[in-house]
Amino acid sequence: MTAPAPEGRAIPFAHVALIGLGLIASSISHALRRAGFAGRITGTARSAETRRRAAELGLCEVFDTPAEAVAGADLVILCVPVGAMGAVAQEIAPALAEGAVVSDVGSVKGAVVAAVAPHLPPGVHFVPAHPLAGTEHSGPDAGFAALFDNRWCILTPLPDFDPDAVARLTAFWTALGAHVDEMEVARHDLVLAVTSHAPHLIAYTMVGVADHMRRVTKNEVIKYSAAGFRDFTRIAASDPTMWRDVFLNNKEATLEILGRFTEELFMLQRAIRMEDGPFLHEYFTRTRAIRRGIIEAGQDTAAPDFGRVVAEGRK
Amino acid sequence: MTAPAPEGRAIPFAHVALIGLGLIASSISHALRRAGFAGRITGTARSAETRRRAAELGLCEVFDTPAEAVAGADLVILCVPVGAMGAVAQEIAPALAEGAVVSDVGSVKGAVVAAVAPHLPPGVHFVPAHPLAGTEHSGPDAGFAALFDNRWCILTPLPDFDPDAVARLTAFWTALGAHVDEMEVARHDLVLAVTSHAPHLIAYTMVGVADHMRRVTKNEVIKYSAAGFRDFTRIAASDPTMWRDVFLNNKEATLEILGRFTEELFMLQRAIRMEDGPFLHEYFTRTRAIRRGIIEAGQDTAAPDFGRVVAEGRK
Repeated sequence: MTAPAPEGRAIPFAHVALIGLGLIASSISHALRRAGFAGRITGTARSAETRRRAAELGLCEVFDTPAEAVAGADLVILCVPVGAMGAVAQEIAPALAEGAVVSDVGSVKGAVVAAVAPHLPPGVHFVPAHPLAGTEHSGPDAGFAALFDNRWCILTPLPDFDPDAVARLTAFWTALGAHVDEMEVARHDLVLAVTSHAPHLIAYTMVGVADHMRRVTKNEVIKYSAAGFRDFTRIAASDPTMWRDVFLNNKEATLEILGRFTEELFMLQRAIRMEDGPFLHEYFTRTRAIRRGIIEAGQDTAAPDFGRVVAEGRK
Repeated sequence: MTAPAPEGRAIPFAHVALIGLGLIASSISHALRRAGFAGRITGTARSAETRRRAAELGLCEVFDTPAEAVAGADLVILCVPVGAMGAVAQEIAPALAEGAVVSDVGSVKGAVVAAVAPHLPPGVHFVPAHPLAGTEHSGPDAGFAALFDNRWCILTPLPDFDPDAVARLTAFWTALGAHVDEMEVARHDLVLAVTSHAPHLIAYTMVGVADHMRRVTKNEVIKYSAAGFRDFTRIAASDPTMWRDVFLNNKEATLEILGRFTEELFMLQRAIRMEDGPFLHEYFTRTRAIRRGIIEAGQDTAAPDFGRVVAEGRK
């Protein structure tokens, strides 16, 4: 490994540059501090207000431009919305240090690889990454050190990847609390279309329907928001820019899954119309089993969260 | 008020009978004890195993038949799936005490009123009710005293309702921790189709799609279950019998909302296909505002729950 942080082997980088200073970048900064990282953290954001706030919070040394922020960094992480990655890559390219590892945190990998890779100079190692972590909040104030704990961070190394760069980035995310895995780019985008992108679009849609309902006033829908809908509104409160870019940049896989979803919904809708009770019961029994799988995989707890948030929050 | 509990005015009933001993009935029992209720609690369940377990847990005096369980009770609460309400009402009718209040906890009110009301003898007061509370767990072990705390319980009194019966049932649910409100039957069923029934069917559908995916193995979908999908699986783990009955018994309102949902989804799907970024951004910004309304209405907290369940569970 090249350029280990002087204070220890846990984080094999000496200077981390964060481009974009929202939820993910601010959480990286907090998690780096928690891990005892004593190297430099530099960063920048497009908006002057975000830069000002990030400086105030002491997230990093804040610069006005991406080129200044990446100068001398041995790890550069692009933490901007997927649709902005290409322009940022082009902007930082001339300023990147020889041998630097360039990575990102985008929820889509195919489009990011296509947008970023052509701009990077030889001698720089590009390792796309996606930490499966987030909250419905955004901005530099939203970050916290534990965001990545026990979450997966998926690396999607390109065919000509540098094993040393991948190993160092793996060590980096492990030090931040994540479990690291590797996956092929297209497969990542399809798996995430199923587990994240389509569910988000569906939640946005259902909340949109509720908003439109004429016979049901908005206040009644909100006042009596039951567990199912309340969870949807939480999902549908995620950052609009980030999600617009996810859908536009994982278009094919998202449309494929939405097509399957619509077929399946029509089948269940027809079963309700035809009053086919046995079909519905069998279907709902099968989906219950998937939940058990997720709990066994350690990605959620069996604690009855559903509908209990308020009571627990008021304890 | 007639027949106040001897030990206090908080719960104006002396003998509560619970028909069906699952999540809701067992939570009522725990909440009654927490409220200091010293009257009788009797109950029954169709399955011998549930009756045995309820007796073991000391939830109530357990009887083998609904008729035995309701004998002498001044409050009878039907806690069975919506599709079983009619048969149970027919069975208990001859055994009901003069002046008893009969209520239920069904998620659908129109179908329950139609199934139950014709069986009840004169001199018995039927007040349909729906506590908006639950978890994805079911059975007599799933109950807990705080389930109804700060949740709404909606009463849907019939046109010829008895004001005293409604007042006593209101006092009952208030003592259990709930906020009580009244609504017209059909309006209840439409509001709940928006806020609960349609979202549940959609969650079941999305989890079904994930289960079917051939190119994505089940294990990968489970292993990398991100926040959106994880919340859906929690919803889709709810009791299959209860939900089959909800959809079959709130068919018209559910199909109406699903029709609106599909129209809306097609519009968003088209925006993705046409790459209409401004439309998507505007839509997602609007849905975000609804979330704020729910937090302001006290039905959820602003704490970033999304994706944090595991980390918090391990603290």
